[in-house]
Amino acid sequence: MASHPAAEFISPSAWAMVEDKFSPYAKETLAKLIAFVHDEVLPAQKVAHAQLPADPEKRWKTVIPVVAELKGKARNLGLWNLFLSKTHYPEYGVPLTNLEYALMAEILGRGGQMASEAVNCSAPDTGNMEVLARYGSPEQHKKWLVPLLNGETRSAFSMTERFVASSDATNIRTSIRREGNEIVVNGHKWYISGAGDPRCALHLVLGKSDPDNSDKYRQQSIVIVPANAPGVKVVRPMGVFGYDDAPEGHCEIIYENVRVPVSNLVLGWGKGFEIIQGRLGPGRIHHCMRSIGCASYALDLMIQRVTDPAKKTFGKYLYEHGTVVSEIAHCRAEIESARLLVLSAALQIDKAKAKGALKEIGIAKFVVPSMALKVVDTAMQAYGAEGISQDTPLAQMWAQLRTLRIADGPDAVHIQQIGQRELKRAPALARRTAEMKEREKALLAQYGVKASL
Amino acid sequence: MASHPAAEFISPSAWAMVEDKFSPYAKETLAKLIAFVHDEVLPAQKVAHAQLPADPEKRWKTVIPVVAELKGKARNLGLWNLFLSKTHYPEYGVPLTNLEYALMAEILGRGGQMASEAVNCSAPDTGNMEVLARYGSPEQHKKWLVPLLNGETRSAFSMTERFVASSDATNIRTSIRREGNEIVVNGHKWYISGAGDPRCALHLVLGKSDPDNSDKYRQQSIVIVPANAPGVKVVRPMGVFGYDDAPEGHCEIIYENVRVPVSNLVLGWGKGFEIIQGRLGPGRIHHCMRSIGCASYALDLMIQRVTDPAKKTFGKYLYEHGTVVSEIAHCRAEIESARLLVLSAALQIDKAKAKGALKEIGIAKFVVPSMALKVVDTAMQAYGAEGISQDTPLAQMWAQLRTLRIADGPDAVHIQQIGQRELKRAPALARRTAEMKEREKALLAQYGVKASL
Amino acid sequence: MASHPAAEFISPSAWAMVEDKFSPYAKETLAKLIAFVHDEVLPAQKVAHAQLPADPEKRWKTVIPVVAELKGKARNLGLWNLFLSKTHYPEYGVPLTNLEYALMAEILGRGGQMASEAVNCSAPDTGNMEVLARYGSPEQHKKWLVPLLNGETRSAFSMTERFVASSDATNIRTSIRREGNEIVVNGHKWYISGAGDPRCALHLVLGKSDPDNSDKYRQQSIVIVPANAPGVKVVRPMGVFGYDDAPEGHCEIIYENVRVPVSNLVLGWGKGFEIIQGRLGPGRIHHCMRSIGCASYALDLMIQRVTDPAKKTFGKYLYEHGTVVSEIAHCRAEIESARLLVLSAALQIDKAKAKGALKEIGIAKFVVPSMALKVVDTAMQAYGAEGISQDTPLAQMWAQLRTLRIADGPDAVHIQQIGQRELKRAPALARRTAEMKEREKALLAQYGVKASL
Amino acid sequence: MASHPAAEFISPSAWAMVEDKFSPYAKETLAKLIAFVHDEVLPAQKVAHAQLPADPEKRWKTVIPVVAELKGKARNLGLWNLFLSKTHYPEYGVPLTNLEYALMAEILGRGGQMASEAVNCSAPDTGNMEVLARYGSPEQHKKWLVPLLNGETRSAFSMTERFVASSDATNIRTSIRREGNEIVVNGHKWYISGAGDPRCALHLVLGKSDPDNSDKYRQQSIVIVPANAPGVKVVRPMGVFGYDDAPEGHCEIIYENVRVPVSNLVLGWGKGFEIIQGRLGPGRIHHCMRSIGCASYALDLMIQRVTDPAKKTFGKYLYEHGTVVSEIAHCRAEIESARLLVLSAALQIDKAKAKGALKEIGIAKFVVPSMALKVVDTAMQAYGAEGISQDTPLAQMWAQLRTLRIADGPDAVHIQQIGQRELKRAPALARRTAEMKEREKALLAQYGVKASL
Repeated sequence: MASHPAAEFISPSAWAMVEDKFSPYAKETLAKLIAFVHDEVLPAQKVAHAQLPADPEKRWKTVIPVVAELKGKARNLGLWNLFLSKTHYPEYGVPLTNLEYALMAEILGRGGQMASEAVNCSAPDTGNMEVLARYGSPEQHKKWLVPLLNGETRSAFSMTERFVASSDATNIRTSIRREGNEIVVNGHKWYISGAGDPRCALHLVLGKSDPDNSDKYRQQSIVIVPANAPGVKVVRPMGVFGYDDAPEGHCEIIYENVRVPVSNLVLGWGKGFEIIQGRLGPGRIHHCMRSIGCASYALDLMIQRVTDPAKKTFGKYLYEHGTVVSEIAHCRAEIESARLLVLSAALQIDKAKAKGALKEIGIAKFVVPSMALKVVDTAMQAYGAEGISQDTPLAQMWAQLRTLRIADGPDAVHIQQIGQRELKRAPALARRTAEMKEREKALLAQYGVKASL
Repeated sequence: MASHPAAEFISPSAWAMVEDKFSPYAKETLAKLIAFVHDEVLPAQKVAHAQLPADPEKRWKTVIPVVAELKGKARNLGLWNLFLSKTHYPEYGVPLTNLEYALMAEILGRGGQMASEAVNCSAPDTGNMEVLARYGSPEQHKKWLVPLLNGETRSAFSMTERFVASSDATNIRTSIRREGNEIVVNGHKWYISGAGDPRCALHLVLGKSDPDNSDKYRQQSIVIVPANAPGVKVVRPMGVFGYDDAPEGHCEIIYENVRVPVSNLVLGWGKGFEIIQGRLGPGRIHHCMRSIGCASYALDLMIQRVTDPAKKTFGKYLYEHGTVVSEIAHCRAEIESARLLVLSAALQIDKAKAKGALKEIGIAKFVVPSMALKVVDTAMQAYGAEGISQDTPLAQMWAQLRTLRIADGPDAVHIQQIGQRELKRAPALARRTAEMKEREKALLAQYGVKASL
Repeated sequence: MASHPAAEFISPSAWAMVEDKFSPYAKETLAKLIAFVHDEVLPAQKVAHAQLPADPEKRWKTVIPVVAELKGKARNLGLWNLFLSKTHYPEYGVPLTNLEYALMAEILGRGGQMASEAVNCSAPDTGNMEVLARYGSPEQHKKWLVPLLNGETRSAFSMTERFVASSDATNIRTSIRREGNEIVVNGHKWYISGAGDPRCALHLVLGKSDPDNSDKYRQQSIVIVPANAPGVKVVRPMGVFGYDDAPEGHCEIIYENVRVPVSNLVLGWGKGFEIIQGRLGPGRIHHCMRSIGCASYALDLMIQRVTDPAKKTFGKYLYEHGTVVSEIAHCRAEIESARLLVLSAALQIDKAKAKGALKEIGIAKFVVPSMALKVVDTAMQAYGAEGISQDTPLAQMWAQLRTLRIADGPDAVHIQQIGQRELKRAPALARRTAEMKEREKALLAQYGVKASL
Repeated sequence: MASHPAAEFISPSAWAMVEDKFSPYAKETLAKLIAFVHDEVLPAQKVAHAQLPADPEKRWKTVIPVVAELKGKARNLGLWNLFLSKTHYPEYGVPLTNLEYALMAEILGRGGQMASEAVNCSAPDTGNMEVLARYGSPEQHKKWLVPLLNGETRSAFSMTERFVASSDATNIRTSIRREGNEIVVNGHKWYISGAGDPRCALHLVLGKSDPDNSDKYRQQSIVIVPANAPGVKVVRPMGVFGYDDAPEGHCEIIYENVRVPVSNLVLGWGKGFEIIQGRLGPGRIHHCMRSIGCASYALDLMIQRVTDPAKKTFGKYLYEHGTVVSEIAHCRAEIESARLLVLSAALQIDKAKAKGALKEIGIAKFVVPSMALKVVDTAMQAYGAEGISQDTPLAQMWAQLRTLRIADGPDAVHIQQIGQRELKRAPALARRTAEMKEREKALLAQYGVKASL
């Protein structure tokens, strides 16, 4: 029997660990996705780049033609909304587990942002669609969710605030106030991804609706703000290193007396924190697996570079110099172990929901971006000046991965949470030790041996 | 249904990854082993230590009573020779796969060298039993293998040579020469583990029997040398840092005109290299999993230390100082990912034999000891002076783990092999890229876009 | 007596190490420079940024007004061409040693590219002025050097080639051919810094003039190519992590049958390699010291961020979380030790010329950029999203520092050279050991002690 | 003029940095010391090792003859008590600054513990002699200090306590109580270095004399306890990775109603904390410089190993494999920069006393041992099994260096102090930024430029 292409494009041993947990549908979809990304998406990168105008005005008003074509192809192939699990979203979802989608996300990571968009699995749309599907009213489904599911519109998640340490959500200053049948939104956000896109139809805006509530996790609400509502001012695109990531962008936005109908409230007053909590688990796994795809692709590029006869120096291949072979071995080792780590987190979500997988998600969240950055940096170095240029995907890949050590909570937050969680094992360990000491005492007596002081 | 103790003593998410690959027998055996190591072995450590004489002469003539007792208990529980798979050794083995035994090896690692000995799974006996079981004659089975399987004798594997860079086996200088019906052995070995034990009955000695063979992998043979044969001189115990690891030890040995019958040849003339190759794969996985057990146990000790109210300084728990919580999180993350890496290597051996798992074994071999050293070093630091003393297992654990970066080939050898193996992917990657470029060209033409130069 | 501001803005202990090696002029100049950079340059950064047009055309045709003003102020203060030592260039230079200028370069690094430009000490002009001053003809001095020394023009050093592994200078493909009284240049370069600047007057172009010479270090020559010569095509600005570094830029350039008079040859035929060798030593030290200035400034920014009451999360200052304090301590330690390393290299150049300081320069070259990248990355992380944005200097600083692991030879080249240089100590060490063994033998005999085997 | 041997045995560029700060006496003494260590001490190591009995009883009753001989030679050469600066101890000291002695301590580090002992500069005697010289009464000088200065006796500093987190000195439990004309000492110490030596004459014991004092830094006193006083029980030697470091040892000691005359109190009641504070600064620098000597010597050994033709594998020198050359380069770089760091700390002590050099001492304290451990570990790895054996100094060197990350305060304490000290710069930095913003505002106005929001 022919082996599955995952063994070649991902890893034979990782595939062996999970193969028997994949449904026939998942196996077939994964195989189709591998072919799609490598045969359709990667060859389209240069075209897409050329189709994005350099002009600072037009950049933000462009729907890239080749991406639109890819979206059509993907949907025809059944490669669409793969992130949305039928188990949780029977109405809209596909029959894939988190574990199954995780490997697909790795493949998407090889194809860059464009691959995710082509199969309608781009952040922040994915998380927004989950929020709307899970918490939205039927009216919200019809008006906002369905066009997103169809890839006709895009969306933004408006949480991070300028001038505020918003990794602590209780610091949020944006105000969400009810006035009659309307909600009034005032706030100053930035790094709102996707808000620059001409197709962006809505912002899910987090703000404080009840700042005096004694439960500080009930002070926040989320409302749907149409992107074209009066008072929504996109101030400027924020940079990621020197990239503007047009046309999606990561925008600074001011909401100035923006008025929306009360029906735009999501889930209910004071439910903002609950929504963002629910939104994060699987999304983090997706980011991690895409990062692993990036790293894996970067290592493929590095191997090609160091074996390229045109790049010999002093009569030798690059791989014959210095520490290149060792670096490749370490990169490979780190990719393999990071992948298994994230897959085990995905499986844990399938078995115990995101709440039962906080440890595994948290570990993946702080381990994977740093790992991927290291691999991509190593590959960049092998490419010399070309590695930091616009002529390979490496430099931009690095910049995007770097944001993941900050987004959804900086590394330090996750590291502290995992460490604190370990400390909670102390009482059980102390009991275990006490029992051991009891038995030790008995044994010492039995053998007439004196313990040291 | 009650969860398996592996979820507590190993890791819930790792267990979830492999549980459905475990037979009922394996699950039950693993549960028994967990109980045995924690209830019987760990409480016996201090007694064992006290029963080993300090006197430099007597140390090497001692069979530690409490270890003998543990061996009896273990055998009664069916916890015996767990490393020997029935699949490969139907006559002697137990019905466990490499994957199943791997988790057991982790548990043994928590109990130190004594745990492995108690269940008759100590290196180098395990590898020697495999060699004899696979390649030995019926007479060799009866005379040498059966007492080892019964735990009545112990053994040594005599390969590393003093004055020789013997990580390249073709450098070996020990001579194995036939004279009539006898084989004459002359050589100078060191770091021969287990040779100090009073129960050590045999040395498997690697030497050159055909030094002029043009195929340098056919120059070596292995013979069984009785430990008490005339001409076998145990020169001294070699140190591992300041430890002598009595009573097993790691000895310097001179073979001076040692004569054994021709029937002591293992497998055949010139088969030495073949034998050592076959011996290494699963053994490396065992070492790795035991190392992970060490690391996991060290982290448990660290957590207890930093939450110990008696160790507060400046009014705070140790964990409230500095970077302790972060270190614990990183240790946990590294243990989790290393374990998955080794488990996937073990599964790969089950699926594709050691030959089909060289990549996974090689990665595990260079990743795991360094990881475990880092974890144990971190725990030592938390213990202060006590951490480097004889009063916790940490310092000796560290010293033993340090040898694993050298034994069975130093890290660098494995790193180079993994790196070189990756380089072999270059032609396939180049083909993939060429195909991509073809499609890219077509797309650029289709959209009338000019590629950059 | 008031202490020198270097003790505050650099480091008291580093200053103590070198103070007595500074002339009164150097002390005074350094003090003026510290004031100039902090009082004049840093407050002008935002203005300069705003004065650079976003329009992709106009960006490259702009002389930033505030920078022009700063240059005037600097020259009036006597802060001009500080890199050019009177010892080597009595006609043009200032009376500063390498060691003295090194600390000034650190201060310039705090002020970014603009600070260096303001005092006419920007790469690549510095190296080019040295080349022209040392090797140029009187005519070349008058026509090309003097305007550069006056800060009226700028220049490029055209060495790196696209499609070529040009870290091995013998791979260079650009052709430099004599035809009658003219030299014809054909070649394809990229990452030619400064070539985008509207004031760029000349390119020093390295090419092969004698490709068949058996001495491969005599095949190259360098010619002065006027930036506006027919056949000089600036293809595009190359990116550095998305930055275009306008208006200087790092350009891709094609030289197509560019004709210059024979008098534009620098030093002589076949002297290209000699020139680039001479050019590199002090320049590397300048880069290193500026990098240390970057790192030091980044750490200052980090300290301000983590003590900013507006950035508290969960009721605590950022520095009260996680590993921030430890990170700051490590950053400080690495900055202090890197600075001493580079200062000792600068002193070594003063004492033994660049040739006698190859070891120290090589070590600084591979140690410092990685160190500075780590510090800046740590500071970025403390700033969260703002850290990777255009609103702090950190992200661009990081990107520029990253190029230094590639420019002037990638890290690996320098690491190998330093390692190989150490290996050359082997014979001397072996002799020392042999002598020691002789004495040991005598002592063993004297005390009647037997050495181990 | 012939160059000083420091340029060869230490580093030419470091020597260049400090040479003009060395007196003629210091230069001459350093040169003599270099010769003594290499010509006398290193050749005596094996003899000394052989003269130390293996017998667990006799080991602790031995004065090694060859060491005694070396001490005589050293004293005749004027290489004696070099640590004791005439500036601070005019009666007993030698005319050396901290900076001058620092380089000598590096040379001592190359010769191991024996070198320091030979010139009467061993810890803990050095610190104890300083304490007695600075704070001791004339009677104490005569009875305890003079024999130590003569190298006739040895001593211990009894501070660390078992069962107590004694890196916080206020946790100390040992009681020091006055009864009439006597002081009664009760306590339980461990890791008391030097207490095993048959020549050990006195313990300086830290304990609580006034546990209820509201100033917790006035609760402690230090008394001189004769090593042979009734009630002083040396329980056992504590291990350091299996080493017992006989005959000095690091002992567990119980003081049970030990009575000494009141005149044995040092300096005064409640002065214990003051004494230990004063004791630490220069001692830390000595440890650091000796560690650098260890690292430097280990790198010399590594270079010899990897260039040894007898250690070729697969037909190549070790240095031709893998990452060896790169490792050597990195080790060299780290040694060079660590040395400069410590020298600058030593100079700072000379300029501003230990109090004015806390930052520099603190940085050296946490940077150097980790650096040296890494270098020695790298060298060990190059030696394979021999590296961890008793046949090279590397393994024991590693173990001793490892204690330095714990002794005199664990790394974490120093890292936190340095980080906190940096945070204190925040107000000054904030002022500097505020001034910059003022000027920026003016400039923006001057140029009519609008700042971004």
